[in-house]
Parts: sequence; structure tokens; C-alpha cells
Amino acid sequence: MRATVIHGPNDVRVEEVPDAAVRGPGDAVVRTVLACICGSDLWAYRGVVRRTPGQRIGHEFLGVVEEVGADVTSVRVGDLVVAPFVWSDGTCEFCREGLHTSCPRGGFWGTPGSDGGQGEAVRVPYADGTLVRLPAEAAGDDRLLTALLALSDVMATGHHAALAARVRPGATVAVVGDGAVGLCGVLAARRLGAERIVALGRHPARTDIARRFGATDVVAQRGEAAVEAVRELTGGHGAHAVLEAVGTEESMRTAISIARDGGAVGYVGVPHGGSAGVDVRQMFNRNVTLAGGVAPARAYLPELLADVLAGVIDPAPVFDRSVPLSGVPEGYRAMDERTALKVRVTF
Amino acid sequence: MRATVIHGPNDVRVEEVPDAAVRGPGDAVVRTVLACICGSDLWAYRGVVRRTPGQRIGHEFLGVVEEVGADVTSVRVGDLVVAPFVWSDGTCEFCREGLHTSCPRGGFWGTPGSDGGQGEAVRVPYADGTLVRLPAEAAGDDRLLTALLALSDVMATGHHAALAARVRPGATVAVVGDGAVGLCGVLAARRLGAERIVALGRHPARTDIARRFGATDVVAQRGEAAVEAVRELTGGHGAHAVLEAVGTEESMRTAISIARDGGAVGYVGVPHGGSAGVDVRQMFNRNVTLAGGVAPARAYLPELLADVLAGVIDPAPVFDRSVPLSGVPEGYRAMDERTALKVRVTF
Repeated sequence: MRATVIHGPNDVRVEEVPDAAVRGPGDAVVRTVLACICGSDLWAYRGVVRRTPGQRIGHEFLGVVEEVGADVTSVRVGDLVVAPFVWSDGTCEFCREGLHTSCPRGGFWGTPGSDGGQGEAVRVPYADGTLVRLPAEAAGDDRLLTALLALSDVMATGHHAALAARVRPGATVAVVGDGAVGLCGVLAARRLGAERIVALGRHPARTDIARRFGATDVVAQRGEAAVEAVRELTGGHGAHAVLEAVGTEESMRTAISIARDGGAVGYVGVPHGGSAGVDVRQMFNRNVTLAGGVAPARAYLPELLADVLAGVIDPAPVFDRSVPLSGVPEGYRAMDERTALKVRVTF
Repeated sequence: MRATVIHGPNDVRVEEVPDAAVRGPGDAVVRTVLACICGSDLWAYRGVVRRTPGQRIGHEFLGVVEEVGADVTSVRVGDLVVAPFVWSDGTCEFCREGLHTSCPRGGFWGTPGSDGGQGEAVRVPYADGTLVRLPAEAAGDDRLLTALLALSDVMATGHHAALAARVRPGATVAVVGDGAVGLCGVLAARRLGAERIVALGRHPARTDIARRFGATDVVAQRGEAAVEAVRELTGGHGAHAVLEAVGTEESMRTAISIARDGGAVGYVGVPHGGSAGVDVRQMFNRNVTLAGGVAPARAYLPELLADVLAGVIDPAPVFDRSVPLSGVPEGYRAMDERTALKVRVTF
């Protein structure tokens, strides 16, 4: 089969690799229908995080079950399914608590020895604990499938940020970052009843989506100027809940600074700035909480799926370009150069 | 009147100062009955945080109301009262939400222009928002008064750490630091229903108190060895709730490392280590929350007071030495040299 392989910085290729196959009784093989490229894939693409040359890449996909191991009971061949961005056994203490990302048997697509999401098929370990069935009717509905694809990561991650930041009905929320996760954070905050949502971002095409998703205000400034702008919009106090969806030192510093005293920052941007942006003295004086991390997408999939199917949320607009599998390298370039927000891969 | 004045590192003196007096209609003057020295006073004593030479010091006291301004309605001359370690107006948005430490009119005892707690009397601004009445009967009960004195800071701060760390019935809790706040954190965790409480500390006199307060286990190691010991005690997973009551880089690093995935660190040690101990990447991967800050003691006083009066909690054992006002400099030395845990000042 063909799949995306990362050889080094700025070097992803679509190559022939061994076919995905059931290896253990809990495995399933999913034939990919849609996949996509994540902002976090760019950290590897840019060489900021190291990958073993030849490693697979991609962690967001949905598709059709092609084969199952003897022990798999929750999905059958032919089922349309979506996978969260980590697999998990579904039975351990952490999975039962809804923190599937801490499952000791869990793993991340594309780690050495596993398939990545940006390929024609994926071997799914712990299929019963990992995969979520989608309605068969969705198969013919490209728009709906695209929205469902967002559940594998960005929508679930935006929701995680909103929960971590303790978004509640009536809350004033600020979202740092206008990437796909930040935009999904806006959607998640609105879904949880936020009254006012300030989106921080400087790309009009993206902040336009933020407004469609429920942002009531947009702040294009950065750094100190952004802090002042948000404070001015919030009666001097800042936002009850701040969603940090970038992961740099500057974005973390901004997020903490615009939180209201007693408020919380829900951070889901993979932190690449170390802790230098975490102003712990300011957090201490103002009782600002820092919560979040890698989103247990599997825990959120059922409720978010129900709301996508019911038309309550539609994250599909975060995808602004489609490429076939052969176009994945071009998709990385486009996202790296910010000419695409989020690239969908069709099969 | 006589009060404690800090002139520089290792230089606190008891001196004649202007009498405390009502200046505004919301003020009260409290004649001090008991005060104490705080671990956080030592940061100033050691010169780690700067004080203006000649500034007053001390922020924990209880006493008898000696004079009130025209607008004061909640306390009367002769009332026995305790003060939280910051004053607050009691009417602003933050006070109404229970975050009195963010009251825009609030302030910290001993800041220039205000009286400190380690003196014969204290002018209390916003007396109605700040002071809490104690039962008159307590006046004759030295042991009870001592327990009530702890409500001004350390017991309330331990409780804040426990709330921030989300201590719940049945939780496994770890407490980093065997100072008075850490010990009160043990007491607070037990009060909130923790099932297992691991106290990290290396001073047997202190960890003995921790055991009396409810600690089920004591870990005397530090750093990596402490992390291993706590993990071993908790089935490899760490504690659901970690109370950080020191404020150094190492203690913060330890606290984060011993939190269970999905758990929370409630930090109340005034952070003097910057953010270097905040391992944000580890927090991200394991969804560890960092919450806490300066404790809104005023918010907690009514419920903690009720429990002290009912005999549910007794923080008095954190005081292991008493000095008269003239002995305050000796009290600082004793705490600095760790020959005293927490020094009470009698008047």
C-alpha cells in the first residue's frame, strides 16, 4: 500500500510500504477514506521535534473496517469508523476514567512499528477500545464526513481546551491561536454556553471562520498589545477562560496574562517553548489555573459525534484544501507556508 | 505602641511606632491578643524579597476591637476578631465570588503605610469586609485561641491548596513540605475526605504532627528519590492531588512529578523559583493541572472557624514556640534556623 513517510525536516514522501494487516486478535485494519494534516505534524516537518527517518506520519483518519482480529467485537468489516489520535485499550483504569491518552497500552499513530493516518490503510491496535462507529449513511455525504474527520483530533482538542479552561454558560472566553484547534476551541466554547468569545488571530480568512464559529470579538494584536486589547474588551479584568492553542512561549505568556483573576488557561498547543512563558508568580498572585494537555479524544467522541450528527456543531470549515494522497507533500508545504489552514487528504 | 519593623535582611526589631488609629469611617483598630511569624515572612527576613527599610511586618493576628469608624457595622468595640492575611472590601465582584485576594481595594498587612500583624495594635481598613468575629468565650481559652490564630493564614492556605488540588473523598493525596502550611494541608486534605495522605518531609518533629493530622505515609527523601518513593506507595501512578507548600523550583518539580496523570497540583508556596520547576511538557503529556495561588483566607474563615469550634480540626499543634512581642527577633532566628516550626507571639 502507499503511505506518507517522513525522512527528515521538510521531507515527507508518499511511498510503497508493507500492507496494513491484523497482527493480534484485538487489531482491526481500516481502509482510509479521509485523513488530514495536523498543525502538530508541522513540528516534525520543521525538524523542531525529531522523527526517526522513515517513520510514518499522520494521526487523523476515518475509514472502513477491512479486517478484524478474532477478539474484536465492537466493529465489523464494512463499518465506517473514526479513530482518535491515540489508540487505547478501553479497559484500563485511565480509559475508564476518560483519560485514554494515559492508557499504558496506548500509542500514537506513526510511532515506529505502527501505521500512520496519512496512508491507504491503518492497522488499529485495541480496535474495541479505539474505534468509534459512524452511521453508514455518512459514507456518501462528503461534507458530513469532513466534519466527522475533525473529531479525530482538532474538534476534540478544542473541546478539551474549553473543558480545561472551565468554560461555563455565561463565561467570557478568549482563544489564543487561529489555527484549526483554536477555531474548534471557539466552536467548543460556544457549545458550552460561553457568552462572549474573543478570538486572538491575525489572519482574516481564519478569524472570519472564528466569527462563524461564535467569536464575538477578534483581537489581531500580539504580545502586550493583545493583552491590553483583551483587557479593554473585558472591563479590565480579562477572560474567565482562556484557550491556548499554539504552544509557544509567547502564546502561553499571553494566555496567562489575559486570564481573569481566579480564571483558568486550558492549554492544548503542544508546548515547544518550555516553561519560560509560564509566569508562575503572576499565576500565584491572581490565582490563575493552568490545565489541559493532550486531549483524550476517545472520551469526547461519542458526545461530539452526536452533536455533529444533530447539526449542533460543524467543524468542517477548518478544512480549506483537499489533496489526494500523492499531494500530501504539497499539503505540508501549504500548511507550513500558511497558505492552507488545514489540509484534507482524500483516497 | 510597639510593633515589629524590618530594617533589612536578618534585621527585625521591635520599636516604638505611631499608635494604630481609625483614619476612615470603614476602619477598625484591633488590639492584638495573639500574632505569629509566617514561613513567608522568612523570605523578607532572608532578603530574598525586598522590603523598604522600616516597613512593618507580620500578617497573622487576632485580637479585640478597640475602636471602630462611623460606618462599621459588623464588629463592635470589645469583639474578639480574627483577620485574614489580606484585607478586602467585602463588596466588590471578586469578594462576592470568594476571591478576596483580588479585591482591588485589598492589601497586605505591613505594606508601607499600613500596620503589620506583629505589633500591639493594627488599623484594619474595610473592617466589615475583613474581620471575622470569634465567640467571646474563646478569649479565655489559650488552646482554642491558638487554633483560631491559624485561620488567619496557614490553615486557610492549606485548605486552599487542598481545594486547588481537587482533594475529594477517597483521593490519594501527597503534600510537599512539612512547614506549617504543609501540615495544615494534611489536615485540610483529611477534612475533605482524602483516604491516603503521603506527607513529604524530613523533620521527624514535623512529620509526627503530619501523622497526627492524618498523614498515612511519610516520605523523607527529596528530588528523584522522593518521586520514586511516592510512586511506589501509589501503585506506580502518583497522587490524585498534590499540595505544594514550599515554593522552590525543586518542590514544584517534585510536586508535578508525583501527581497522577489527570491529577492536580495545588500550589500555595509563594513561588521563588520562577517557572523553571514547572515542567510544562510533562504536565501536557500527563494532563496534570497546576492551580492555586494566594489563598483567599477570608472566604474560608466561616467554614473553617465552625470546624475548629466544633473540634473537627485543630491546627494548634503547628505552633511549637511562644515569645512575647520583645522576643519576635529571636522567633525569626528560630524559624530561620528551623529550631522552631511556627512561633506564636503573645501580648
